[in-house]
Amino acid sequence: MTVAYDGTDYYGWQKQNDPRLVTAEGELEKSLRKLFKDNTLTMMGASRTDKGVHSLGQRITIDVNSNIPAENIPNAVRQYLPWDMAVTAAVDVPFSFHPRYDCIKKTYQYKIWNKKHKNPMVRNYSEYVSVKLDIMKMEIAAKECIGTYDFKAFCAMGSSVVSTVRTIFDCKVKASDDFVVIEVTGDGFLYNMVRIIVGTLISVGKGKIEPMAIQGIIAGGDRQLAGPTAGPQGLTLLNIYY
Amino acid sequence: MTVAYDGTDYYGWQKQNDPRLVTAEGELEKSLRKLFKDNTLTMMGASRTDKGVHSLGQRITIDVNSNIPAENIPNAVRQYLPWDMAVTAAVDVPFSFHPRYDCIKKTYQYKIWNKKHKNPMVRNYSEYVSVKLDIMKMEIAAKECIGTYDFKAFCAMGSSVVSTVRTIFDCKVKASDDFVVIEVTGDGFLYNMVRIIVGTLISVGKGKIEPMAIQGIIAGGDRQLAGPTAGPQGLTLLNIYY
Repeated sequence: MTVAYDGTDYYGWQKQNDPRLVTAEGELEKSLRKLFKDNTLTMMGASRTDKGVHSLGQRITIDVNSNIPAENIPNAVRQYLPWDMAVTAAVDVPFSFHPRYDCIKKTYQYKIWNKKHKNPMVRNYSEYVSVKLDIMKMEIAAKECIGTYDFKAFCAMGSSVVSTVRTIFDCKVKASDDFVVIEVTGDGFLYNMVRIIVGTLISVGKGKIEPMAIQGIIAGGDRQLAGPTAGPQGLTLLNIYY
Repeated sequence: MTVAYDGTDYYGWQKQNDPRLVTAEGELEKSLRKLFKDNTLTMMGASRTDKGVHSLGQRITIDVNSNIPAENIPNAVRQYLPWDMAVTAAVDVPFSFHPRYDCIKKTYQYKIWNKKHKNPMVRNYSEYVSVKLDIMKMEIAAKECIGTYDFKAFCAMGSSVVSTVRTIFDCKVKASDDFVVIEVTGDGFLYNMVRIIVGTLISVGKGKIEPMAIQGIIAGGDRQLAGPTAGPQGLTLLNIYY
């Protein structure tokens, strides 16, 4: 299933031990359990989005015996879902399919409201940057991020992963209306990696980091050299490819 | 001053007698009173937006003695404003200026999310219509709304105004991304008029009302002939012209 949610009011995707913390995974599981009248139903999600991060392309699988055809699930589950969540597609998959391991690439989108004054209507869906960003410089810097590298410099401190090597297939910056929109596609992302890439591109757009310094920052492998971590609210998981 | 706000959490623009009802006007007044250290300061607003309706172009005036230059007010008041409101411009005006009476025309924008499945991220900023709308028909119908007419058929029941004659200068429908966006410019609007125009255009887009029936609906003067009232959350006061 493809799942869309507004991350504003969720304590992230992943279920938490503290039952007071409302998570997207927890709410979706509850809704699917009601639909299938099965209190033991569990799901596997593809991506653990952080608190405040949105999704238009989260993917999950369930293993269930039901006579509801897959294509009817989006409409059937609607009545049980919170109003800030939607199942937008459902298909049958082979039993061997795994939403996380079978993923080939993912695309995240980041929106920046780049005007002198803030726009209250987009505060939960964008980062507000009042200084006019230099889009040309950001485009050059974005291209410098493409490739297979050790992205240790773009990984939040304290995260423990076996390898910090990832491949960025594409990294685009475009100005549309009053937004600057960044789209990053990769085979996987380290903790906070997209938000640190965005924070670094914003620093480039402000003239604080030179576009051609990106490769040096990657090679340096030092988190301190990269820009700040951009806020979660501008980030949307757009698509996962299998 | 030009004032932007997200209408989602406000009980409309206008201050209410019940102090538990949080209004945009009430919150803005509180903030300006703090800025100017004046507990008697009052404001005049141009437009009484309904509960759930947003603004990027509300205008207000205040009469205050202060050494803060007008152009500094947007930044100076920011610290006192709720996070879902912003003053985006401020200029000095002659004492005789009235934000409501001196208005020449206003533009409202209405957004419709026109996809099979809802998008939780835009639920507070658009009307969700799952049936594919016929944009061509809507464009024809929108043009039929332009002119000076008695718009009684497009006025919520129970409203008491002296005259129901208004001039619509422009009414545009455009499809952009997955939204259908309607922009209406007029010299003034009756209660719920824009939302009834939009509801009628949606009915046209669904094939329930023929585009060329609009003039008959206007001439009939019967609210029942027009379409339903579209929800408030899709509506944004975009601009007021003086």
